[in-house]
Amino acid sequence: MTATPLSDSLADAVLAGDRRSLARAISLVENASAAAERLMRRVYPRTGHAYVVGVTGPPGAGKSTMVDVLVNEIRAGGETVGVIAVDPTSPFTGGAVLGDRVRMTGHAGDAGVFVRSMATRGNLGGLARTTGEVALLLDAAGMDVVLIETVGVGQDEIEIVRTADTSVVMFVPGTGDDVQAIKAGIMEIADVFVVNKADREGADHLVQAIRASLTLGPSGPKALPSVLTTVATTGEGVSALWALLQKRRVDAAAERPARRQMLEESRLRELVVSRFRSSFDRAIPQEEIERLVSDLVARRTDPYEAAAELFERTLASEARKASAAERQRS
Amino acid sequence: MTATPLSDSLADAVLAGDRRSLARAISLVENASAAAERLMRRVYPRTGHAYVVGVTGPPGAGKSTMVDVLVNEIRAGGETVGVIAVDPTSPFTGGAVLGDRVRMTGHAGDAGVFVRSMATRGNLGGLARTTGEVALLLDAAGMDVVLIETVGVGQDEIEIVRTADTSVVMFVPGTGDDVQAIKAGIMEIADVFVVNKADREGADHLVQAIRASLTLGPSGPKALPSVLTTVATTGEGVSALWALLQKRRVDAAAERPARRQMLEESRLRELVVSRFRSSFDRAIPQEEIERLVSDLVARRTDPYEAAAELFERTLASEARKASAAERQRS
Repeated sequence: MTATPLSDSLADAVLAGDRRSLARAISLVENASAAAERLMRRVYPRTGHAYVVGVTGPPGAGKSTMVDVLVNEIRAGGETVGVIAVDPTSPFTGGAVLGDRVRMTGHAGDAGVFVRSMATRGNLGGLARTTGEVALLLDAAGMDVVLIETVGVGQDEIEIVRTADTSVVMFVPGTGDDVQAIKAGIMEIADVFVVNKADREGADHLVQAIRASLTLGPSGPKALPSVLTTVATTGEGVSALWALLQKRRVDAAAERPARRQMLEESRLRELVVSRFRSSFDRAIPQEEIERLVSDLVARRTDPYEAAAELFERTLASEARKASAAERQRS
Repeated sequence: MTATPLSDSLADAVLAGDRRSLARAISLVENASAAAERLMRRVYPRTGHAYVVGVTGPPGAGKSTMVDVLVNEIRAGGETVGVIAVDPTSPFTGGAVLGDRVRMTGHAGDAGVFVRSMATRGNLGGLARTTGEVALLLDAAGMDVVLIETVGVGQDEIEIVRTADTSVVMFVPGTGDDVQAIKAGIMEIADVFVVNKADREGADHLVQAIRASLTLGPSGPKALPSVLTTVATTGEGVSALWALLQKRRVDAAAERPARRQMLEESRLRELVVSRFRSSFDRAIPQEEIERLVSDLVARRTDPYEAAAELFERTLASEARKASAAERQRS
């Protein structure tokens, strides 16, 4: 909204691959700064080249270690890589800032690697949207591969991983909850399953359980996901995983337009809704919302009636703004 | 929107405690039926009495078993109880419908227990909102306690549990990911921590890890959460858990208004946004969105510009609708 020439020069610096500018641009996006939209508009036409891989799975599956070793593989192949670690850390533990410092120290000084941790709480733009925009920024800055690591298997994580070109879902044997974990809403988004810590007892059983659950599903036009075993701490199986991901990068090119179409549509819808949210915040003073809410708590009104009124008033406020702009123009 | 006398009589039947009507009302809410709003408006003034307890934790923590045993405790105390099992099941496994059939069979025929499983995928109203409305329906139908069980520790689950008066977060020892699990964004919402399967090795260590992480946080005005151990399969510790939850029910009464205020505000905001979403869907034909999205995928336009245009058109469409209604009135 607020057009600052600053965001234009920042965008150009990001496109030129300047790391400090990239970090600043990501912060603008994370803080839902007014300059972020202008910045994103400027970099957007130069995006769409990076191969985005999502890595998810329950806590303790070894995702951070896996991403670390994958970065080595990718760098060994001569490509640059950006890492987005989505870290649903509570405010108690210091959160993402600490994470940036303690993680990926092995890649410090490598200009071909850019790591960014993102906190889930207090994320003003909505987590899936922000993650998608940060991936676009890394893409614009020239990263060949973007790895998005998310903890957990909640709906929010699923949304994030859906923005990836290829999704890796990790499991670990021996937690005794194989079937429940597999049930937990991620079968449909996984392109590749990884059973990590495969030197533990129960790994074979888990691989079989995953395979069995896959054959239960409707086959459809999409190829069945692969199931691999790894030991990320020793690097075992990680080269094979990256080779498979590279194969999918080529194979998926054909099916990508449909997937891209779906992703761009949900991105677009969220952007429209976020415009409404801003408009609502401008139209209705917080004190008034609080007064209404007190009435709700006391059951003096109902939320449906209150919502209808607030919606009408937001529209009326936008209409007044538009006609004022119209008068100014004429 | 569409005012049907049917939803009024359904609402009255729910308020009278009719189970079949309650099940139908929940389906209306889940399917975001036009009649749902009128129904909810009618029952809302009669809500606010039930004690809502959220139970969450990673897959395999034993939540279903725990809820089952808690239901026995609650019934033994003479109170009625509704259970909402939020089940993020993939379409592969048949989902919530199957869940209803295989679960809680021990309570079949007990008119003081009402169990409803809810699928997370394809939920039209937004999962947290729908869960909140179903809890209101159970409250309106006269349930003294409502237990909401959610799988996973994602942001969506956190939103659901935030709607509860008291939140129980379950863990299980021996998965080797204690610290990561505790980090995973749920410390701030938990009122009570339960280490279940406490007969397993590592239970004491896990209790200590949870306690240690709690003392790291800012103390604030809120009392520190309790940490309990249970073995839900044998019922060990579950009476103590319910006793603690009962104590919190009374103690929390003082702090509840602030919490209720916050919850009602987020419910209200979501209702306003959902009105905008409906308005958007009426204003913009899907074919047009798809055409725009093709332009986005080809980078012929950018999503920010496209979103601005769609937002303006949604507003214009609402303005036309309003002035048409105005003309009809005069």
